Amino acid sequence: MVKNSSAAMPAKTAILASAKTVKTTVRTRATQRRTTRTRKQAEKPAIPVHIIPLGGLDEIGKNMTVFECGNDIFVVDCGLAFPDDDMLGIDLVIPDVTWLEKNSDRVRGIVLTHGHEDHIGGLPYVLRNINMPVYGSRLTLGILEGKLKEHGLLGKVELNVVEPGDKVQFGCMEVEFINVTHSIAGSLAIAIKTPSGVIVQTGDFKIDCTPILGDMIDLARFGELGKNGVLALLMDSTNAERPGYTMSERKVGESFDALFQRAQNKRIIIATFASNVHRVQQIVNAAACYGRHVAISGRSMVNVINIAIELGYLDVPEGLIVDLDLINRYPPEKMVIVTTGSQGEAMSALYRMAFSDHNKIEVGPNDFIIISANPIPGNEKTVSKMVNELLKLGAEVVYESLAEVHASGHACQEELKIMLGLTRPKFFIPVHGEQKHLRKNMNLALSMGMDKRNILITEIGQVIELTPNSCKVIGTVPSGRVLVDGFGVGDVGSIVLRDRKHLAQDGLIVVVATIDSVAGTVVSGPDIVSRGFVYVRESESLMDETRRVAKDVLEECAENGIKEWGTIKSHVKDALSKLLYERTKRSPMILPVIMEI
Amino acid sequence: MVKNSSAAMPAKTAILASAKTVKTTVRTRATQRRTTRTRKQAEKPAIPVHIIPLGGLDEIGKNMTVFECGNDIFVVDCGLAFPDDDMLGIDLVIPDVTWLEKNSDRVRGIVLTHGHEDHIGGLPYVLRNINMPVYGSRLTLGILEGKLKEHGLLGKVELNVVEPGDKVQFGCMEVEFINVTHSIAGSLAIAIKTPSGVIVQTGDFKIDCTPILGDMIDLARFGELGKNGVLALLMDSTNAERPGYTMSERKVGESFDALFQRAQNKRIIIATFASNVHRVQQIVNAAACYGRHVAISGRSMVNVINIAIELGYLDVPEGLIVDLDLINRYPPEKMVIVTTGSQGEAMSALYRMAFSDHNKIEVGPNDFIIISANPIPGNEKTVSKMVNELLKLGAEVVYESLAEVHASGHACQEELKIMLGLTRPKFFIPVHGEQKHLRKNMNLALSMGMDKRNILITEIGQVIELTPNSCKVIGTVPSGRVLVDGFGVGDVGSIVLRDRKHLAQDGLIVVVATIDSVAGTVVSGPDIVSRGFVYVRESESLMDETRRVAKDVLEECAENGIKEWGTIKSHVKDALSKLLYERTKRSPMILPVIMEI
Repeated sequence: MVKNSSAAMPAKTAILASAKTVKTTVRTRATQRRTTRTRKQAEKPAIPVHIIPLGGLDEIGKNMTVFECGNDIFVVDCGLAFPDDDMLGIDLVIPDVTWLEKNSDRVRGIVLTHGHEDHIGGLPYVLRNINMPVYGSRLTLGILEGKLKEHGLLGKVELNVVEPGDKVQFGCMEVEFINVTHSIAGSLAIAIKTPSGVIVQTGDFKIDCTPILGDMIDLARFGELGKNGVLALLMDSTNAERPGYTMSERKVGESFDALFQRAQNKRIIIATFASNVHRVQQIVNAAACYGRHVAISGRSMVNVINIAIELGYLDVPEGLIVDLDLINRYPPEKMVIVTTGSQGEAMSALYRMAFSDHNKIEVGPNDFIIISANPIPGNEKTVSKMVNELLKLGAEVVYESLAEVHASGHACQEELKIMLGLTRPKFFIPVHGEQKHLRKNMNLALSMGMDKRNILITEIGQVIELTPNSCKVIGTVPSGRVLVDGFGVGDVGSIVLRDRKHLAQDGLIVVVATIDSVAGTVVSGPDIVSRGFVYVRESESLMDETRRVAKDVLEECAENGIKEWGTIKSHVKDALSKLLYERTKRSPMILPVIMEI
Repeated sequence: MVKNSSAAMPAKTAILASAKTVKTTVRTRATQRRTTRTRKQAEKPAIPVHIIPLGGLDEIGKNMTVFECGNDIFVVDCGLAFPDDDMLGIDLVIPDVTWLEKNSDRVRGIVLTHGHEDHIGGLPYVLRNINMPVYGSRLTLGILEGKLKEHGLLGKVELNVVEPGDKVQFGCMEVEFINVTHSIAGSLAIAIKTPSGVIVQTGDFKIDCTPILGDMIDLARFGELGKNGVLALLMDSTNAERPGYTMSERKVGESFDALFQRAQNKRIIIATFASNVHRVQQIVNAAACYGRHVAISGRSMVNVINIAIELGYLDVPEGLIVDLDLINRYPPEKMVIVTTGSQGEAMSALYRMAFSDHNKIEVGPNDFIIISANPIPGNEKTVSKMVNELLKLGAEVVYESLAEVHASGHACQEELKIMLGLTRPKFFIPVHGEQKHLRKNMNLALSMGMDKRNILITEIGQVIELTPNSCKVIGTVPSGRVLVDGFGVGDVGSIVLRDRKHLAQDGLIVVVATIDSVAGTVVSGPDIVSRGFVYVRESESLMDETRRVAKDVLEECAENGIKEWGTIKSHVKDALSKLLYERTKRSPMILPVIMEI
C-alpha cells in the first residue's frame, strides 16, 4: 500500500527541501532564506533540543509547539481555541506568543500539520508580528490563504507547499514530512532530526487503512524511524480514552449508501464539517451513484469545497454540483444539499433551516436530513435543539452515532499503541488533549512496558530539554490565552470579563446626579437607569424607592460636607446595593455618575 | 416477587384513600376535603377527560400535567427546569400556571410521582397561589418538606403520604398508586380511573428486577390494568433513543465492590446525585464490607441522607457514618467520603475539592475518586474540567461509563416496549422528553403495530380531550416558562434578558451630560463610563475620541435647536455606535443620560 518512495529513502540522502523539492506557491519577499545558516551545528551532537508547547496541552485547541536548538527556532502549528462559556463576548482564543516575539530573529519558519482551525486558526494573528515562512500541504496552505486574505496578509507571507517525504532544514534541525490519515486531507506528521536525536510529532492522526483519497498513513516510515531510534514521540491524545480502533472513513460511505436507498423519494440534506473533504467526496460519490445533484449551503462549506476542487482533493463529475439558487429546477428526490451546521452553530445554514430562517431552503416532511458529525463536547444541547426543530418541521433526521454516519479523525487506544510500538521512542510526551486524555495516553505506554520516568506529562509554557539521555523541564516561558474580540487581540482582560459576567448575571443600575460644586447641593437628579436588572415599567415602586434612597444619601453627604466624589459614589453604591439585594435578592452593577457644574 | 397485595385488589373494592389508608403527616388546615364532592359524576360514562401538559413535553424538566374531568381538576407533578445558556442570571425555570390559578377553585390536589427536582422543584412557587393538598410517597414528601420550610410554607400545606396500592379520589377521578423503580426511592406511577376510561401515567421509571430497596416495579399491576383496558398511556421518553435495557442499580454495587478492592490503600471519594438513596445505600454497604467509615460532604447530600435515614429508606450500621470534621481521626484507607458535585457544579463539594477550595478535604495522590453519574447534557465540559483538576492533584479518578459506576433511572427501548405491551393502551401520548425523545418513543409503539392515528405527540399548553373513542387536541391554555431570579418570579422577561445578553456580549458605554434647558448648551460633560467594553486605562485615546464625538453631536443639536431629549439621545447613540464599531468591531450598549438644569 505504501506508494511514497521517499518514505524508504535513507535520511542521509535527503535533499534540502527548501532549496529543491518544496514548491513555493507564493513568495512575495525576496529575502534570503535563513534556514541554511546554522548548518554546522548539526555536527555537534551535544546540543540539547528544547520543546516548548505554547498550546494544546491540558486544554482543547490552540495547538502550538516550539522547537529550539542552539540558535534556531521553528514552530509546529498555531491554532485557535473556541472561548469557554465564561469568556463572554469573546470570538476566539489564540496562544500567547510573547516569548516567540522576543525571539523572532531566531525563528526559521512554521510547519503546519493540517488545515483545521485548532492548528492554523491562530496563525494570521501571529504572522502580524512574526513574519516567518510557512510550510504545509497544498490543502492546508489553500485554506490558510483564505484566512490571510481576510487579514490583509496575502502576498506578505512566504508559503511553501510540501509533500510527504519532503525535508526542510531549520538551522540545525531538519523536518521530514510523513503522510498520515485524519479527518481532513493533506495531513502530515513530522520527524525532526536534531543534534540530540530524532523527535516524532504525529500531528492529528488515525490509522485508516482504506482512506478515501491518497495513500494510507505511512506506517512503514514510522517503523523505520523507530528501528533507527526515536528520541522522543509527541503523540495526539484526543481519543486516548476510547478503546479499540477508530472506524474507517470509508465505512461512512457505506452508511450513506444505505441511507440514500432509504431516502429514495425525499430530498437529502447532509450536514458535516466544512473541512472534511473526504466526507464531501463520499457524499458526491453517493449522489452520482443515485443520480442526484449536489448543492452547497454555508459560506465555509462553499469556500473549502472550491479550494478542494481547485487543488484536486475533490473529484466531482461535470455538472453534478448545481447552484443553490437553482435547486428548485430539479425534483427534490434528485437533490442532495451539503450544508454547514453539524454542531448546531447559531448562524450556520442547517440551524437557520431548522428555525425556518434560511432564505433558500425550506425544510419539511419531504426532507431526509443526515447529521454526519458527533457533537463536540459543549455543543450537545445546541445540536439537540436544532434536531428537535427539524423533527417538528416533519423532516426525518438521522443523527445518532449508531447510524455510523460519522467517523472520528483521531486514533483510539489500539492505534495509539501501534504508533508507540512502531516508533519505540525513548521518551514519550503525550500532547493534544486535556489532562485526562494525556494521562490515558500515558497509561497506554505504561501498559506496553514503558518506564514511567521516561514519560512526561507537562503543560504549556514549560521548557522541555531533550538530550540523548534525558528529558526534563528546565524552565518556563510566558504562555496562556490571548482573547480576540472584534478587532481587539488581547485587549479584553480579566477586568472587562469580570464586568461582563456581572452585567450578564444581574444587569445594572446607573444613578446620575448633577451637583453644585460650590454648595454641594443636588441641582438635578438623581435619575435612575436600569438595564438587564428589572423591567422598569413593572417595577416603578422599586425604582422610586431607589431614587429616594440615592437622593437621601446625596443630601446626607451635602449636609456632612462630604465633597469627595469617590466617597459620595461609594456611599450611593453601598446604600443601593443593600436596598436592591433586600428587595430582589439580586446584585446589579451600580454605576453612580456625578456631574458637577 | 410482587408482594404488594393491594395491587391485585379489584378496583371496585378500593377505599377512599384520603379518608382511610393515607397517613397524613402534616395536616395543619382543618378545611373539609373537597375530593368527595363530585362523586356522582363517576356514574356518567360520557364525560370526557382533558389532559393539559404544562411542562415536560418538547423540553427537559419542569414536568407538570393537569387532568380535568367535568368540574374536577388534579395535577401530577410540578417540577423545575434549569435555565438555558441564554437565560443569563436566571436561577431556575418553573411552569406557567396561569390557567391553573384561574381555575384554582376546582383543583382537588396534586400527586407527586417522585422527589426529583424536575418533578417537585416548582411546587413551592405554585403553592404560594394555589394551596392544594399534596400526595406522594414518604420520601417524596420528606424532601418536599425541606423545600416548604425554605419557602416559609411548612405547616400551611396539607401533605398526605401514600403507598403503592393506595387510591385517592379527586372528584370524579380516582388515582391509584403503583410501585415503580427509578433512580430515587419512593417512585410511583399512577392509574387514573375516569368516566371515560383508565389512564396510566408511568412517571419516571425503569424495569429494575433487582432493586436495592423495596419491591421491583409492579409489572403485574400494569398487566392487569392492560387486560381490563387502558384508554391512554402517558410514558416517560427520556431514554427512548437508547436500545436495549437499562442496567440494574445492583450492577453498580458490583462495580463498587471491585473498585473498593482496587483502592485498598487509598481514601475513596464518591460523587453521586444527592437524591440517589439506592446508590448511597450501596456505598454504605461497600464501606461496611471493607471496614471503612463514611463521611458526607455537600449540603444537599447531608439533607437527603438524613431524611432517608429518618424515614427508613437508608439502612446504615451504627457508628458507620462519621462527622466530616472528624475524618482525620481515621486512617485515609478506612474512609469513604460521599459527596455532591457529580455534575461539576461550580459550588459543589467535589468541585471545590478539585480547585483546592474545600475547607475540610484536601485531595492528593492518596485519593481514589469515583464519579458515579453520567454528565447531564450540557454539563460535559464542566465535569471534564473538574476531572482534569482532580487528576492534576495526583488523584486516581474513575469516571467513564465503561466502569459501570452509574446506572440510568430511565427505561430504555426494550423496557418501554414491555410497558407498552403490558398496558396495551388504546391511545399513546409520549411524555417527558424533547421532540426527538417523544418521536423515538412513538416509533417504538409503531414498531409494535400501534396505529399512528392513536399516538399523539403534543406540546405544553395543548388541551387533549380523551373520550372512550377519541384522543385529540381541542384547544390551548397559556403555558410556557416562568423565570425565577432571586426573589423575582416571572419579573425577568424578554427585554431584561435581551439587555443582559447585549451587556454580556460587548459591555456598555454610559454617556452623561448636563444641559442648560433654556439655552440648550452643554454645561457639564459629556462624561464617558465604560464597563465590560474595553479596559479604559488601555484605551484612553478611544475614550477621548468617544467623548469628542459625543460633544460634537450635543453641540450640533444645540446649534440646530434640537431640544427633544429622545432625539438628542438617539443622535448620540447613532454616532457612537458607528464610531465604536469602526474602531473595535464591537457593539457595546450605549446609554446616553442627559440631565437638565
